[in-house]
Amino acid sequence: MMRQEKILLTPGPLSTSLATRTAMLKDWGSWDGDFNALTASVCADLLAIANGQAQHCCIPLQGSGTFAVEAAIGTLVSKSSKILVLNNGAYGQRMQKIAQKIGLNVATLSWPDGVPVDPAALDAALSADPSIGYVGLIHCETATGLLNPLSDIADIVASHGAELIVDAMSSFGALDIDLARMPICALIAASGKCLEGVPGMGFVIAKTSAIALAHGNSPSLALDLADQYDYLQRTGQWRFTPPTHVVAALRAAIDQYQAEGGRLTRLARYTANAKVLIESLSQAGLALFLAPELQAPIILTFHAPRHPEYQFAAFYQAMSQRGFLLYPGKLTTVETFRVGCIGAIDPAQLQQAAHAIIDVLTQLGWLNSQPKHSTIQ
Amino acid sequence: MMRQEKILLTPGPLSTSLATRTAMLKDWGSWDGDFNALTASVCADLLAIANGQAQHCCIPLQGSGTFAVEAAIGTLVSKSSKILVLNNGAYGQRMQKIAQKIGLNVATLSWPDGVPVDPAALDAALSADPSIGYVGLIHCETATGLLNPLSDIADIVASHGAELIVDAMSSFGALDIDLARMPICALIAASGKCLEGVPGMGFVIAKTSAIALAHGNSPSLALDLADQYDYLQRTGQWRFTPPTHVVAALRAAIDQYQAEGGRLTRLARYTANAKVLIESLSQAGLALFLAPELQAPIILTFHAPRHPEYQFAAFYQAMSQRGFLLYPGKLTTVETFRVGCIGAIDPAQLQQAAHAIIDVLTQLGWLNSQPKHSTIQ
Repeated sequence: MMRQEKILLTPGPLSTSLATRTAMLKDWGSWDGDFNALTASVCADLLAIANGQAQHCCIPLQGSGTFAVEAAIGTLVSKSSKILVLNNGAYGQRMQKIAQKIGLNVATLSWPDGVPVDPAALDAALSADPSIGYVGLIHCETATGLLNPLSDIADIVASHGAELIVDAMSSFGALDIDLARMPICALIAASGKCLEGVPGMGFVIAKTSAIALAHGNSPSLALDLADQYDYLQRTGQWRFTPPTHVVAALRAAIDQYQAEGGRLTRLARYTANAKVLIESLSQAGLALFLAPELQAPIILTFHAPRHPEYQFAAFYQAMSQRGFLLYPGKLTTVETFRVGCIGAIDPAQLQQAAHAIIDVLTQLGWLNSQPKHSTIQ
Repeated sequence: MMRQEKILLTPGPLSTSLATRTAMLKDWGSWDGDFNALTASVCADLLAIANGQAQHCCIPLQGSGTFAVEAAIGTLVSKSSKILVLNNGAYGQRMQKIAQKIGLNVATLSWPDGVPVDPAALDAALSADPSIGYVGLIHCETATGLLNPLSDIADIVASHGAELIVDAMSSFGALDIDLARMPICALIAASGKCLEGVPGMGFVIAKTSAIALAHGNSPSLALDLADQYDYLQRTGQWRFTPPTHVVAALRAAIDQYQAEGGRLTRLARYTANAKVLIESLSQAGLALFLAPELQAPIILTFHAPRHPEYQFAAFYQAMSQRGFLLYPGKLTTVETFRVGCIGAIDPAQLQQAAHAIIDVLTQLGWLNSQPKHSTIQ
């Protein structure tokens, strides 16, 4: 049976609620007091979600989450210092590439896909090179769905007097991030992930003292967070045309987040979503790529069926016809596919998705280890 | 009487049609073939609007129009060359600031607000400095609403073998820009202006040969148009999460643009909008800042009433209560206010707006040259 609306089992853009989308039916003047109040309320709530009211500020930025990552690193990391990027996946590699591209002094500590950042190795690296002033981390590495040990890493970075910059893109709003408890210089996230808004803006929650010291540091005008914050403080407005409808959708999404019960309730729903998928697919012989204790309930990476004719594109198309959009794997050495657990979806829908995955792979003849001729070209 | 929806008399974000906004009620997978087709159709139509199919390509970019300006300059202008920015207003100044910020070799030719770029002076400047390889121009300077002589400028730049980069933010889709006739290296515009989409993405229509030569030139990863184009060509996808709902709204807006009759019909509507406003406000003693022949029918700058107690904020609030959002002036030496003529609005609404402006200023006691005590604090 064909659905009217396909369900996005992806790490964002994801399925949003109708209430979030209908919030985009109104036009807003970007200079207007009503819109300034909207921006201020969104920023205040984002800051509160991170428990960062004491020492941090929230700076919204136009564009995708990657724009906010480049803005945070370019604004905060001093050219006379060095950033150590902790890399165990595609997004860690991207952070390293950004830091190199904008001309920073970059060091990298790498682990294979699926191996979490090792706090002891980080400790040794910081001891060995006191010129490292900043450490960059991906909290939940979307390439695999792996959760890195944020709290331990934050403590080690702080013990060396360095500053931690965290890409919390796919964890913010669901996983445990507490700025009152964890020493973090800057958190980066976006509208269209666990907050369940639509894509089109990122934001950086940064130490206000660090932003104050960063004026003139950014090599970009558009991506200068210190300038953006300054202008917001003075005028209540974004420096350049804001994505007004996206901001309004995020406001509506945060209202629903709060009504649902906040972070722990959202995490519980995503955890239930993940559990249904893992249980159903495991029973059908589809194995998780990660050890369960490393797997965040955000996006799950499964080994592809070990059938010689397996092709993700055909699997994707058949699932799309059933109303579910999957996500391709992002590992270079192992064939995988990914299923997102986030968005305005619940365990009942994930159960339907699991049934559809099993049905489709069975029909394609790819679920058993015995090769068969596929009926799909 | 209070309207349900305020009318935005601004240069964008502007009032969009309900059809454009309802296009945002669907979620799209950014990896999905349907969304790739949406992106491709939008880019093809934008290219056709500029008549650039022969030698140009269209590259969409997340963020506001300013992000696209920085991306175009950063990607296209070689560090070993020099860019001459033609500056007669706030957006010319911004282009100069961007070029300086990203470390380019920048020269500037400036004129006061309201004075158009002088092609003869440009010709002399290019003759005097053969190291200038690029010229940056604001087509319609939104700070005043002034139209610069694009065609003449393009011919002069080409005659010196230099490349022209045009910020066509508030002119694209309404004013005459024909890439088959005018030698232009790159045009920059955005979703939320004369195309009447919602804000959240820009785009650059650039010579394909210039993009091919620009690989590795950008000092930014997020704003690298050569990389963005390359990825789009290879995969059909944006490099980083696209603002899916904004793209869908732009698709709907372009459908309406084509149904309305395209550029000339849209220009005719904006011209009629401007005519109604200019005639009504002139009769009430409110004078245009620009000479009529320099004024584009996009955004009109009027001298503020010469009353000593005039304040834009109170004027704005009173107009907002009547359902119209005005735009502040952006000139440092003269007190002005601006009224946009673009968006999903027609002469009947501009007539209502003109009546409201006259009523409000009369009630505030600011319309006559004789000072009176205002009843507003």
